[in-house]
Amino acid sequence: MFMNEMTKAECLSTLAHSRLGRLACSYENQPYIVPFYFVYENSYLYGFTTPGQKVEWMRSNPLVCVELDEVVNETEWMSIIIFGSYEELPETQEDREHTNLRRHAHSVLQQHAEWWQLGAVSSTHRNPVHPFVAVFYRIHIDRISGRRVTPSHDRPMN
Amino acid sequence: MFMNEMTKAECLSTLAHSRLGRLACSYENQPYIVPFYFVYENSYLYGFTTPGQKVEWMRSNPLVCVELDEVVNETEWMSIIIFGSYEELPETQEDREHTNLRRHAHSVLQQHAEWWQLGAVSSTHRNPVHPFVAVFYRIHIDRISGRRVTPSHDRPMN
Repeated sequence: MFMNEMTKAECLSTLAHSRLGRLACSYENQPYIVPFYFVYENSYLYGFTTPGQKVEWMRSNPLVCVELDEVVNETEWMSIIIFGSYEELPETQEDREHTNLRRHAHSVLQQHAEWWQLGAVSSTHRNPVHPFVAVFYRIHIDRISGRRVTPSHDRPMN
Repeated sequence: MFMNEMTKAECLSTLAHSRLGRLACSYENQPYIVPFYFVYENSYLYGFTTPGQKVEWMRSNPLVCVELDEVVNETEWMSIIIFGSYEELPETQEDREHTNLRRHAHSVLQQHAEWWQLGAVSSTHRNPVHPFVAVFYRIHIDRISGRRVTPSHDRPMN
């Protein structure tokens, strides 16, 4: 087996073709991980969710970590780690920049219509009385790195 | 789609049949996620790794989060979240309890021999001069919860 560091270009290329990752936030030094769907564009991961513990924690502490991996088995896998910062995109009449960013996030994300259903079911399950509330956000990629393990030098993972 | 909370028994049963998860630690409120292999036994996840940032951070702050999931697609998935605490199992002559626990961890983990190779290649890659050093640890499960999303009520995910 051989382990190689991935270049930044390789990491970003993988990111552009990925949708599912794990997002960790932290509050009073207690980390918390959730699986999440995202779309990568220009140094940002765009996503949306419903209000809850994750959002409260990221509002309180915007430092996050994103991990994505492809694990074939113990001898063949790759993992990408991102250190980033959470930025919420609220709908406000006062803040035109954020409103435009929210519209942009909506535009980027609506290519994957089923996400809406996922958010909706989550909201409905937790609070059947109140209507669906979407929280749009993006994560700025501050640092990105990746590692790839292959069984041998001449059998790189695709 | 329907979302259901999993019972503790369902979560633990899933854990007993799982090996791969994601582990998050946190230092100065910066979370950090890595994929990891574990074996579950009696309220603990046993694992080993090589020295590095993850170990340094967990020595400094033992609060961790473990996540495992099975994602078929956006409408069919399950995710388990564990809030736990890191406990290292060093080999010391003074501390008989830790030495016994380390032996127990070794016994639990050696059923999966390829993990040693993975640790070894990682160590070799990073520091070719120094010999392989294994860090044995376990994570106590303080809290566990899980969610399952299925396309309909009568098509539960296996």
